[in-house]
Amino acid sequence: MTEVSPGCQSALNDLRKGIDAIDQEIVELLSKRQKQVDRVVALKKAHNLQVYHPAREEDLISARRQQARDAGLCPDFIEELYRIIIHRSRIEQNGQMARKGVRPGATVLIVGGGGEMGRYFTDWFKGAGYVVRSMGSRDWEDAAKLCDGIDLAMISVPIDKTPGIIHRIGPYLPSRAVLCDITSIKKKPLAAMLYAHSGPVLGLHPLFGPTTSTLDKQIVVACAGRDDAACQWVIDQLSTWGSIIVAATADEHDQIMEFVQALRHFATFCFGQFLASKNIPLARTLEFSSPIYRLELGMVGRLFAQDPGLYAEIIFATPERRALLKEFIQSLGRNLGMLETGDKAVFEAEFKKVAAWFGPFGEQAIRESSFLIDKLIERF
Amino acid sequence: MTEVSPGCQSALNDLRKGIDAIDQEIVELLSKRQKQVDRVVALKKAHNLQVYHPAREEDLISARRQQARDAGLCPDFIEELYRIIIHRSRIEQNGQMARKGVRPGATVLIVGGGGEMGRYFTDWFKGAGYVVRSMGSRDWEDAAKLCDGIDLAMISVPIDKTPGIIHRIGPYLPSRAVLCDITSIKKKPLAAMLYAHSGPVLGLHPLFGPTTSTLDKQIVVACAGRDDAACQWVIDQLSTWGSIIVAATADEHDQIMEFVQALRHFATFCFGQFLASKNIPLARTLEFSSPIYRLELGMVGRLFAQDPGLYAEIIFATPERRALLKEFIQSLGRNLGMLETGDKAVFEAEFKKVAAWFGPFGEQAIRESSFLIDKLIERF
Repeated sequence: MTEVSPGCQSALNDLRKGIDAIDQEIVELLSKRQKQVDRVVALKKAHNLQVYHPAREEDLISARRQQARDAGLCPDFIEELYRIIIHRSRIEQNGQMARKGVRPGATVLIVGGGGEMGRYFTDWFKGAGYVVRSMGSRDWEDAAKLCDGIDLAMISVPIDKTPGIIHRIGPYLPSRAVLCDITSIKKKPLAAMLYAHSGPVLGLHPLFGPTTSTLDKQIVVACAGRDDAACQWVIDQLSTWGSIIVAATADEHDQIMEFVQALRHFATFCFGQFLASKNIPLARTLEFSSPIYRLELGMVGRLFAQDPGLYAEIIFATPERRALLKEFIQSLGRNLGMLETGDKAVFEAEFKKVAAWFGPFGEQAIRESSFLIDKLIERF
Repeated sequence: MTEVSPGCQSALNDLRKGIDAIDQEIVELLSKRQKQVDRVVALKKAHNLQVYHPAREEDLISARRQQARDAGLCPDFIEELYRIIIHRSRIEQNGQMARKGVRPGATVLIVGGGGEMGRYFTDWFKGAGYVVRSMGSRDWEDAAKLCDGIDLAMISVPIDKTPGIIHRIGPYLPSRAVLCDITSIKKKPLAAMLYAHSGPVLGLHPLFGPTTSTLDKQIVVACAGRDDAACQWVIDQLSTWGSIIVAATADEHDQIMEFVQALRHFATFCFGQFLASKNIPLARTLEFSSPIYRLELGMVGRLFAQDPGLYAEIIFATPERRALLKEFIQSLGRNLGMLETGDKAVFEAEFKKVAAWFGPFGEQAIRESSFLIDKLIERF
């Protein structure tokens, strides 16, 4: 690279000043836009209208894509910017709307309210105008008073304590109160709730942790227990906050979670365990990293930055899970043969079988992960 | 949600028209901005200046963050938008600069030029003004003519064929020509090149596939062979295209790649293989998916959407690799005990050991993956 001549440098400076002036105008317009969006929210709030309006969002994006094309800009680039702008505006709208509860003034008891998830839901319910009471392990003397007149009892304690707590709280609950739990297994807690409480019962599994700043598009699995109509407002409240509700039986939920949670976390655990046992030069491998390796290693590192107790709970939740994980380990042993003989043909045949099983998901995964890799490159 | 009254609907429409007008102005400004950036590129090109200017980019972002703060906008939001705008502008600048070769007019021979990576580099070299010749397995009769007067021979054939091809092409090469390979192992090919050719030798491993649309920030590992000074222009050309060059010895490279590629791909292969053998309801599990599960499953699906031969090559490349993978399988067997006894304490103790080994990378991984999860939520 050559030295910059003074004339060239001054021309460059002028051009950059021009860009800065344009950027300043853009940010001013974004600020004006936000004020306009605030007015929309105020109007929607006053008339009890929902924030999310998919058709309007797609229209807006189509119009901006067309304008981009006409102006010689890349439409995907403009769409990307507008997805962020719209997403941001939806978060802010949800934040403002969250104060509007489905049943404001109703009383919610969080059993285990001092835990991370307990505090998380306490904040959301309080923000939406509910009266929230919290109950911990030292509050059993006051159980009758804490349960008096409540509309919802949410059990937010570790999995292995959940059935015991449910049995203990049952007798104190008003019969019209909804009883729900939020553990990551559903058969046992649901059976315990139906046994311990004669009123409405709902099994919930929020598929996110307490560090999730928004409920937007976050999934909550809902397993019907008893008196769906009486439970509906709880579901509506979660939807109002932006969650997606997936209905399932407790059986189906638990089976799917064996794979979605237990197996996945266990496989990640084993991988990280092996890297550590080999003491690989982590920092240096990152220098050698394509973005996709960084992303995959990040998934492993992420697990180990979290609470071991939580993962132990998930992995050891039921005997069925432990049996599945043993089966997984044993299935790996079957690959020893091809490694010993170095038989690529066996590997390729097996690979093709699995690829066929994945079907179109593979292509979709490439698209989605390529998109994310671009994001990683942009950002880090 | 209640019915919308006509008065409210008309007020809403007016507010939305206001937003549309603002959006139109924003896109107009982005178009003006691009034209200004094009002028900067033309100037840089004329004066042979580099495109990437980290300090200027950070200054620009700081200024916009400050303006956002003053205007009551979220600075992170504005930074996110500007990272995309800057990234886009860098891609376009690189695209325009790519036509400027480090040694335009020099002759490059791609051995295996009909393969995917071969075609990929053919396009890049041609775009930068090089004379590019391609040689396939049926062109050995013309080898002398194809090698006549070349400045660079790049070997782009499957790993197991690489040493043989190198030995065969060696005698045809002009002694001043650079000989390089681009396979994912480096010890064997480098030794073969040093033996077969008396001139400059360079081992390269581009850590990306032929579907990568830009070389921006993509990593290329470079292992010095012979006569670094004579090889430098090849390195410079890759840098000019936006790649990051990581220098390593062939030994270090191969050891790290055992983990970064072979082990990682093999672990992913085993995981997908088990899911397929259990025939889990893939589509339904995706409905139950938190974004992070979707992302992790996507990493598995992504592998199986690619070429089995490529992965067989990577996994079975050397006896050392196969030994490592056997060790991995055996290490998993050691976890059978705790699964049988259901001993959470053993799991947690092991978990903490691994977490300590990962150290600060865990926190970083949480930050990076949380960022990506937000992107996934925005987009899909």
